[in-house]
Amino acid sequence: MHAYRSHTCAELNKSHVGQTVRLSGWVHRVRDHGGILFIDLRDHYGITQVLADPDSPVFAAVEKVRSEWVIRIDGVVKARDEGLVNPNIPTGEVEVFVRDIEVLGAAAELPLPVFGEQDYPEETRLKYRFLDLRRESLHENMMLRSRVVASLRKRMWDIGFNEFQTPIITASSPEGARDFLVPSRLHPGKFYALPQAPQQFKQMIMVAGFDRYFQIAPCFRDEDPRADRSPTDFYQLDLEMSFVTQDDVFATIEPVMLGTFEEFGQGRTVNREVPRIPYAEALKKYGTDKPDLRNPIEMQDVSDHFRGSGFAIFANLLEQEGTEIRAIPAPTGGSRKFCDRMNAYAQKEGLPGMGYIFWRERDRELTAVEKYLEEFNISKIYKGDKEIPLEVGIAQLEEFLRQKDDDAIRRIAEHLKSGETESAQFLIDAYFGPFEAAGPLAKNIGPERTEAIRQQLGLGVGDAAFFLGGKPEKFEAVAGRARNVIGEELGLTDKDRFEFCWIVDFPMYEQDPETGKVDFSHNPFSMPQGGLEALESGDPLSVKGYQYDLACNGYELISGAIRNHKPEIMFKAFELAGYPPSEVEKRFGGMLNAFRYGAPPHGGCAAGIDRMVMLLADEQNIREVIMFPMNQRAEDLLLGGPSEPTNVQLRELGLRIVPQE
Amino acid sequence: MHAYRSHTCAELNKSHVGQTVRLSGWVHRVRDHGGILFIDLRDHYGITQVLADPDSPVFAAVEKVRSEWVIRIDGVVKARDEGLVNPNIPTGEVEVFVRDIEVLGAAAELPLPVFGEQDYPEETRLKYRFLDLRRESLHENMMLRSRVVASLRKRMWDIGFNEFQTPIITASSPEGARDFLVPSRLHPGKFYALPQAPQQFKQMIMVAGFDRYFQIAPCFRDEDPRADRSPTDFYQLDLEMSFVTQDDVFATIEPVMLGTFEEFGQGRTVNREVPRIPYAEALKKYGTDKPDLRNPIEMQDVSDHFRGSGFAIFANLLEQEGTEIRAIPAPTGGSRKFCDRMNAYAQKEGLPGMGYIFWRERDRELTAVEKYLEEFNISKIYKGDKEIPLEVGIAQLEEFLRQKDDDAIRRIAEHLKSGETESAQFLIDAYFGPFEAAGPLAKNIGPERTEAIRQQLGLGVGDAAFFLGGKPEKFEAVAGRARNVIGEELGLTDKDRFEFCWIVDFPMYEQDPETGKVDFSHNPFSMPQGGLEALESGDPLSVKGYQYDLACNGYELISGAIRNHKPEIMFKAFELAGYPPSEVEKRFGGMLNAFRYGAPPHGGCAAGIDRMVMLLADEQNIREVIMFPMNQRAEDLLLGGPSEPTNVQLRELGLRIVPQE
Repeated sequence: MHAYRSHTCAELNKSHVGQTVRLSGWVHRVRDHGGILFIDLRDHYGITQVLADPDSPVFAAVEKVRSEWVIRIDGVVKARDEGLVNPNIPTGEVEVFVRDIEVLGAAAELPLPVFGEQDYPEETRLKYRFLDLRRESLHENMMLRSRVVASLRKRMWDIGFNEFQTPIITASSPEGARDFLVPSRLHPGKFYALPQAPQQFKQMIMVAGFDRYFQIAPCFRDEDPRADRSPTDFYQLDLEMSFVTQDDVFATIEPVMLGTFEEFGQGRTVNREVPRIPYAEALKKYGTDKPDLRNPIEMQDVSDHFRGSGFAIFANLLEQEGTEIRAIPAPTGGSRKFCDRMNAYAQKEGLPGMGYIFWRERDRELTAVEKYLEEFNISKIYKGDKEIPLEVGIAQLEEFLRQKDDDAIRRIAEHLKSGETESAQFLIDAYFGPFEAAGPLAKNIGPERTEAIRQQLGLGVGDAAFFLGGKPEKFEAVAGRARNVIGEELGLTDKDRFEFCWIVDFPMYEQDPETGKVDFSHNPFSMPQGGLEALESGDPLSVKGYQYDLACNGYELISGAIRNHKPEIMFKAFELAGYPPSEVEKRFGGMLNAFRYGAPPHGGCAAGIDRMVMLLADEQNIREVIMFPMNQRAEDLLLGGPSEPTNVQLRELGLRIVPQE
Repeated sequence: MHAYRSHTCAELNKSHVGQTVRLSGWVHRVRDHGGILFIDLRDHYGITQVLADPDSPVFAAVEKVRSEWVIRIDGVVKARDEGLVNPNIPTGEVEVFVRDIEVLGAAAELPLPVFGEQDYPEETRLKYRFLDLRRESLHENMMLRSRVVASLRKRMWDIGFNEFQTPIITASSPEGARDFLVPSRLHPGKFYALPQAPQQFKQMIMVAGFDRYFQIAPCFRDEDPRADRSPTDFYQLDLEMSFVTQDDVFATIEPVMLGTFEEFGQGRTVNREVPRIPYAEALKKYGTDKPDLRNPIEMQDVSDHFRGSGFAIFANLLEQEGTEIRAIPAPTGGSRKFCDRMNAYAQKEGLPGMGYIFWRERDRELTAVEKYLEEFNISKIYKGDKEIPLEVGIAQLEEFLRQKDDDAIRRIAEHLKSGETESAQFLIDAYFGPFEAAGPLAKNIGPERTEAIRQQLGLGVGDAAFFLGGKPEKFEAVAGRARNVIGEELGLTDKDRFEFCWIVDFPMYEQDPETGKVDFSHNPFSMPQGGLEALESGDPLSVKGYQYDLACNGYELISGAIRNHKPEIMFKAFELAGYPPSEVEKRFGGMLNAFRYGAPPHGGCAAGIDRMVMLLADEQNIREVIMFPMNQRAEDLLLGGPSEPTNVQLRELGLRIVPQE
C-alpha cells in the first residue's frame, strides 16, 4: 500500500464498504460521542469521517490528536446508518473505522482556528497565512483564481495568441507610476527596474513580427497600498495585436472576458451586448470612468433649472464659467432620513453637502382649487380616459377665478385658452399634481422648477434626487461614489449581474487648471484619433485617443489602446505636452528606434487578474484572492520582508543607507 | 474591407484566384525581373508573393519600398504559371497583382538584415532585437518556446495540478545563490528580495493544504553570466505535491517531460525507461551528475592495473589515500593524432595531461613464436572451432622452448600443463593476440597489464583509452568533460536522441578537504534518508538525501527533493552542519513556524524552461531561446538598463551611492 494514502478524503463511497483503506489529512474536527471518537479528516479534496471506539487497537493514540494535526490512518470502510448519512459531502454515506494511525505532523496550539472561519485580525491571518489558507473560503478563492487564470490562457490559445515571457529585471521606464528599482551588483551605482507592465516589450514583440501576443504578466508598481490594489506585484492578462483597429481589439477580448465571467459567475448574468460609452458621457452620467451599470441611476445636468432660481448658492455658482448643477436621481429614496444620511455622506467626502428634493404624495387635505381640478379631472383633459370638452373646462376655470384670485389657476386657464396645452398640463402637475416635493431646496426654487426637475429625472412619489454644483472636476468623483452608495442602500444595484461597458474616446490631453499647462491625460503612447492632422489642429484638448477601458460593476478591468507607431506623430504628440524631441529620444529612445525599422499598426490591452477574481469571488479586498499578500504597509509578515541588508550585500551593490531623521 | 487585411500572408491559394484581397506585412525581399517588381510580403504566418508591373496604377509607389518596410496592399489574386509554382510555401500557387499600396511603417537602412540570416555580432543583434527576432530561426525558437510552455501547462492541469502565483517582491532568503534586492520606499533602509525560486512559498502552499501546486515561475539569481544561464531572471516549471514519496514525484513528472520532448523533439527519440543512477555512480561513470547518456562511454576504475606498475607516476599516486586511476574508454579513438589532441585538451583544462593507450592490429611481421601460435591456432585451443588436442599443443610448445628461450611461451606452457587454461589464454592474448597496444604508457606497464585493461574496458583494434589519476574530486570534472569531447569527436554521441536519467541518493553533507568542516552539499531542506536516526548515526557524510536531479543529454533539467517537514529533524540536520537552533530560527523562522502547525510530508521539483527549450531547439546559447535577453554583462541593450537612478529616486529610497574607486 502507498505510504500515505490509498484514496483521497473525497473518494470513498458505498462501493468501498468492507475495504481496508489508507487516508492522510488534517484533523478538521474531533468529537467525542459517548466514548467514540469521531474525526473529520480533511485534505485538499474533501472530508471523510473516521472514528475509533475503545476496541480500536490505536484508541489511545487517536485520543491524543488535536485540530490540524496531520495524520495517516488505516481502517475499514463501513456504511453509515441511514439516519446518519450526510448528503452534503460525497463521502457522506460511509465512515472509516481506524485500525492504525501515524502522526505525520503534529500541530501546536492554533493562533487561529481553521474550522468555523471566525473573523480574525488581518495581521494574525497574514502571519499565519498557511493556517488562514486552510479555511474553506480562502481555499476556494485560491482554487477559483487558479481556474480563472487557466481558463484565460486556454481562451487566448484558442484564438491564436501565443504567450511570451518578457523580462522582469529590466530598464527603468520613466512614465506612469513609480518604479521598483533593483541595484546592479555587476554595475555598482546603476539600477535595473521592475516593469510596471510589459508595455514596451509587447510593442517590440509586435515590431518583431509576432502577430498576437499575450502573457499573464507580473507587473510592479511602487504605489501606496489600497484595498483593490496590491502594494507590490500584481498580475495582468496582457495582450497585443498587429494590424488591428480598436474594433478588432474589442471583438477579440470581449468573448474572453464575458466567457470567463459566465464560466465562473455561478449563475450571475453577463450582459452580452457591451455598450461603448464615451469618456465624457461616462463622467456626466456616472461621475466616473468605471461605472457600475448594475446601478440604474444616471446623473443628469439640471443647471437650467437652477439658473436665476431662488436657491442662491446654485444660482450664484452658475454665474462662474465651467460650472454645472448635476442631479443624482434616487428612485425609492424619498425619505428625509435617507436624504439627510446622503447629505452627511457628501460632507464626509469633503463637499459642503448635497442638496436634495424628495417627492411624496400630495397632502390629501385638498384646497378648493385642487378639489375642483380633481372633480373635473382637469389634469386628465389631455391625456385621461374621461375627457371633458375643453371649452367646458376653461369656462369652469374662469368661473373659479371670479371667486378666488389664484395665480397658478389663472396661468393654467390662459395656457388652455391659447391652446398651449402642454404648458397648462405642466402647471397643473407642478401645483396640483400627485407629487409633492419636500426639502428646503424645493421651497427655494418653487414648484415649477421643482416639477421640471422631477419630470426631467423621471421621478415620482417616494423618490428623491440629490444635487451637486460647481466645476464638475471638483464634485464628479464624490457624485460618482454617492451614486454607488445610493444604488447600494436603496437596493437598486442588482447583485446578480455583471455589467460590462467599454469607455472610449479618452482625451489625449488635459490642462492643469492652476498652471494652464497641457499634459497627457492618460497614455502618451496611444494613437490620437485623426492622427497628425488632429494634433496640428491647434486645439490639443479636443483631441481624443484610440484608448479604452473595460469597466465592470464599478471596477476598471481592462485598459488599452491602439498605439502610436509612427515616430513623427509621437514627436508631435510629445511636443504638444511640452517635451522637446531630445527629451523624447532620451526617455523613449528604445521604442522610437524600433518604430524606425518597419513598425506595424498595433494595439492591445491589459486585464487585471486580481480584480477579475475579486469580482468573481465577490470579495471587497484584494488580499482575499492573493495567496501570500503583503499587508497594508507593504510588509511580508510570513517571511519577514522587507528587512535590513547585510553589510556585505550593501558593499557588493555599492550602496550606503542614509540614516533617517 | 478591413483596414489592414482580408487575409494573412499564409492564407491565399488557388481557391482565391480572381478575388480582390488586402494584405499587410513586411517587405521580405524585392526583386526586379525585367521591369516587373516582385515583393515577398511577410507576416507572422507566412509569405505571399505580390507583384507590380508598369501598368499598375501604383507602380511608382511600389518602386519606392525597401526591405522591412511595413506595407498594406490591395490586389487581385492570380494563379502562377505551372512552372513558377513554389511547392514549399502554402501560398506558392498564387501571386497578387498590386492595385493599391499604403506604407504603414517605413524602415531606415537596416543595421542587420532579416532576409538571409547572416551572422552578426551579438551586441548588434541585442540592440536591434526587434529586427533579429524577425529572422526565421529566432522567430521559430520563440514560437517553440511558447508552445512548449503551453504544453507543459496543459499536461500539468491534466494531471490535477493547480497553478498558483507566488510573490515576486518578497523577503530575502539567506540560502543558495545571491539574491537580487529591491529597496523599499515605504521602509527606507530595508530591502525586499526577488525569489531565487518559490521554494518556501510552495512548501507553505503544501502546509496550507493544497495538494498539487505548479507554476511556470520566474526565478531570480544574481549570478555571473554563463551560456546556459540567464544573468537575471529565468523560468522554471516549479511543482510540489503532498503525501508523496520520491517514486510518486518521478511517476508524476516523467510523463510530462518525456511527453513534451516527444511532442517537440521533431523525431528525436526519447528513452521511455528512465534509469536511476546513484550520485556516486554517476560521478564514477560519467564524471558528472548530469551525464550525457547519448554518449555510450562509461568510465571505469582501473587502479588495480597501475598499482605497483612500471608507470611510476600512477603507481606513486596510488600510494596516497583516496586516489584512483580512472579510464575513459574511447572506442574508435585509436590513433596517435586523436590521443595527442585529447591529451592537449586535458592540459588546457588544467590537468598535467591524460595518459593513453590505443590498440592497433598486431604487426604482420610475425616472430617465429607468433608464427607457431598462429599455425597451430593455439589461441583458439579453448574457444575456437578448429581445436587441436591439448596434449599435442603442449608437446609442440615444449619442443619450441627447446629451440628458443621465451619467457612468455614458457609461462603459457606451464599454465596449460597445470590446467590453468584461462591464464594461458590471457598470456597468449597479451603477447601474441591480434591487439597491439601503443603509446608510452603501455610500454611502461607492459603487455599483461595493458591487456588486462583492454579486456576490462572491452576495447579492441582501433580503440583507445585515456587515464586520469589522483583524487577523484580533482580530476572528475575534467574527465567528465573529456568524455563529452571524446564522444562528440568520435561521433559516438547519437544526436538524434534525448536520453533522460534520474540522479538519486545525493549526499546530505560534504566535508571541506582543507578545513574538515562539514556542510550541506546540496539542499538543506531535503529529508535525509533514514530520518532522524540516520542523522544521529555519527557519520553525517554517509547520509543521503531524498534528493534528485533529472539530467538529459548532459544538462540538468530538473532538481528536486522530498522535503524535511519535521522541525526536530531540521534542527538536527542543521546542527550537523554547524548551525545552532537560534541561527536556524533566525534564518528559516517562517518555514519552521509553518511546520509547527500540521505539515504534511511533501516533495517536488523544478524544471528549467530555458534549458528545455535550448535542447529542443538544438541551441547552445540560452539567449537564442529568450525573447529579450541581457547580454553577457547583464545589460539590457534594447532599453538601456541598468541605468543611473535620479536623485529623487535615491532620496525616496533613503540610499546613497558609494563612489567606486
